[in-house]
Amino acid sequence: MQRRTFIAGAGAATAALGARSAWAKPEHKWKMVTTWPKNFPGLGTGAENLAKLIGEMSGGRIQVKVYGAGELVPAFEIFDAVSRGTAEMGHGSAYYWKGKSEIAQIFSTVPFGLTAQEMNGWMYHGGGLELWTELYAGFGLVPAPAGNTGVQMGGWFNKEINSVADLQGLKMRIPGLGGEVLKRAGGTPVNLPGGELFTALQSGAIDATEWVGPYNDLAFGLYKAAKYYYYPGWHEPGTILEAMINKDVYESLPADLQSIVMNACKVVNQDMLAEYTARNPAALETLVSQHDVELRKFPDGVLAKLRTLSNEVVAELAGQDAFSQKTFASYQKFLKQAKAWSGISELTYLQARDRLDQQTDDQA
Amino acid sequence: MQRRTFIAGAGAATAALGARSAWAKPEHKWKMVTTWPKNFPGLGTGAENLAKLIGEMSGGRIQVKVYGAGELVPAFEIFDAVSRGTAEMGHGSAYYWKGKSEIAQIFSTVPFGLTAQEMNGWMYHGGGLELWTELYAGFGLVPAPAGNTGVQMGGWFNKEINSVADLQGLKMRIPGLGGEVLKRAGGTPVNLPGGELFTALQSGAIDATEWVGPYNDLAFGLYKAAKYYYYPGWHEPGTILEAMINKDVYESLPADLQSIVMNACKVVNQDMLAEYTARNPAALETLVSQHDVELRKFPDGVLAKLRTLSNEVVAELAGQDAFSQKTFASYQKFLKQAKAWSGISELTYLQARDRLDQQTDDQA
Repeated sequence: MQRRTFIAGAGAATAALGARSAWAKPEHKWKMVTTWPKNFPGLGTGAENLAKLIGEMSGGRIQVKVYGAGELVPAFEIFDAVSRGTAEMGHGSAYYWKGKSEIAQIFSTVPFGLTAQEMNGWMYHGGGLELWTELYAGFGLVPAPAGNTGVQMGGWFNKEINSVADLQGLKMRIPGLGGEVLKRAGGTPVNLPGGELFTALQSGAIDATEWVGPYNDLAFGLYKAAKYYYYPGWHEPGTILEAMINKDVYESLPADLQSIVMNACKVVNQDMLAEYTARNPAALETLVSQHDVELRKFPDGVLAKLRTLSNEVVAELAGQDAFSQKTFASYQKFLKQAKAWSGISELTYLQARDRLDQQTDDQA
Repeated sequence: MQRRTFIAGAGAATAALGARSAWAKPEHKWKMVTTWPKNFPGLGTGAENLAKLIGEMSGGRIQVKVYGAGELVPAFEIFDAVSRGTAEMGHGSAYYWKGKSEIAQIFSTVPFGLTAQEMNGWMYHGGGLELWTELYAGFGLVPAPAGNTGVQMGGWFNKEINSVADLQGLKMRIPGLGGEVLKRAGGTPVNLPGGELFTALQSGAIDATEWVGPYNDLAFGLYKAAKYYYYPGWHEPGTILEAMINKDVYESLPADLQSIVMNACKVVNQDMLAEYTARNPAALETLVSQHDVELRKFPDGVLAKLRTLSNEVVAELAGQDAFSQKTFASYQKFLKQAKAWSGISELTYLQARDRLDQQTDDQA
């Protein structure tokens, strides 16, 4: 049913586009393949939004048609599809391509690493995007941040996680570097596209799964297949969704259209994070009050162990080759500075706001 | 000297624009007036960036020339200048216009209110921008978020602030609602454009000042006129810089150019926050290690008192009229939800990252 709803939403969007008769005849007809179900909240609608913005700003000179996972190619084949030009553009996340390049994962998110705001700092003003561009050029692709989930949730479990021992033997859907950390904690990480999670969890093919956060996890109905909802998302503190454009196609565009495409990605990058920030709170309330989900914080000891393992996993990324080394060094330098700054800005402010609220509540 | 440097930077940018001979003949020549010194880091360069993006994406169909504070009109007269069409566009911040509308301040920042990320959630997906648009329509303006400072610093003082008594009689530059809070704590708030802060502080015309954060405060040399640098910026937890466009001018544009202008604002909104996130850490280090600035955290008791006064000040905003009431209600509802969500996401994550870092340091 939900899948049907997403597709119906897409039909309405297409109709709205068709109504703009003032538009120019398309000079460029593009296909955008994605790793998400068509019009899935946040991720899929973000991809649709990206297509719409490119159309609007170019006055219809570029027309982008969005394909959900599996419509043109399977979710995890979009990287190759855009690389070889089957589609001009794709929307996914870089940690899905670790089979192509281990270091690519750093351009999605890093366990205990940068938040969304910090990730944007590294990308746009800290050298991150230049490095990513260098890496993807080798695959005939141009990358751009095009969405961010913010701090994710830790995942859905059918048993409480009271110690690291509870992770032993746990078969959990968790992609990227977080998956490798779980493996070293004794678990079995698997990667599955979002659209397959509910069935896998309900059938017992996996014991646990993380996905994104309340807004998206509610949409997939994950609460029907697991009882405990853990936080914080130590493994994905600010995951970047990516747009990738076929490099030859991108370079054939005139300067104004290149600028429109890259800036549309920037707009969606910000807009998706804003959408999650606005939608997660109400979805969380629905999960807890209407679906009796039990919210749990990972115990400090579990987080400490996961942190130690994360440090090992992340450090090994640097050892792969010279490019990985310089990318890792750039990220680590930025992270160190960002922590020092957040320690007297974002963190101190949020602590003060939270603590003073509790005092007010106590007095009330 | 610094002012001269900013202007030299602008000249280079203009030369680069002139070199784009492939551009169309401008159909729209706009003036953008600003409240900042020309090319001031972050704020002024953000305004330049906005002009550049509009030019690039429109293929030169709109050409925007940026004027620093006082070049065409004084800093605090840009609202009127754009409203009456002397300039097509302006870049400032809404709390400068509280003489026009008290509630306008809520569209800049609110003491102990939303962070930058949360503010974007309210603006783009929580009804904030619709309300702001409604308010500014009455002045013949179209507003758009076009920059954010993130959590600011608390300000520069020549004496330690150990209790609320130390704020008594303090003459401090602090605009917006934060200024009103200081007044109720016994201080004397004044508002001055950024370009006048250093002289005012050094001459003793004011005892203390806040401005933005390390990156900007270093550029103005404020460390030469005060010793103590306080945090966190309780009064400005995520200040939105605004673009305003003359409404008639905006509505006369075709749909593609309207989209380009509004989306360029969105790009700059994100980019400026990314720039502050990337540049503040190194500037902070320079202030502390090279200029012997003493970093101080506001005592908990001072923050608690300021919080109580802030609640009073903010609540009074709602009483002004029906529009203020609905805007206040929208903001407060969003804030309440945002706090509940940040309490299990951003805050919990940053606390875990910070605490585990300290543990690692202790063990090392």
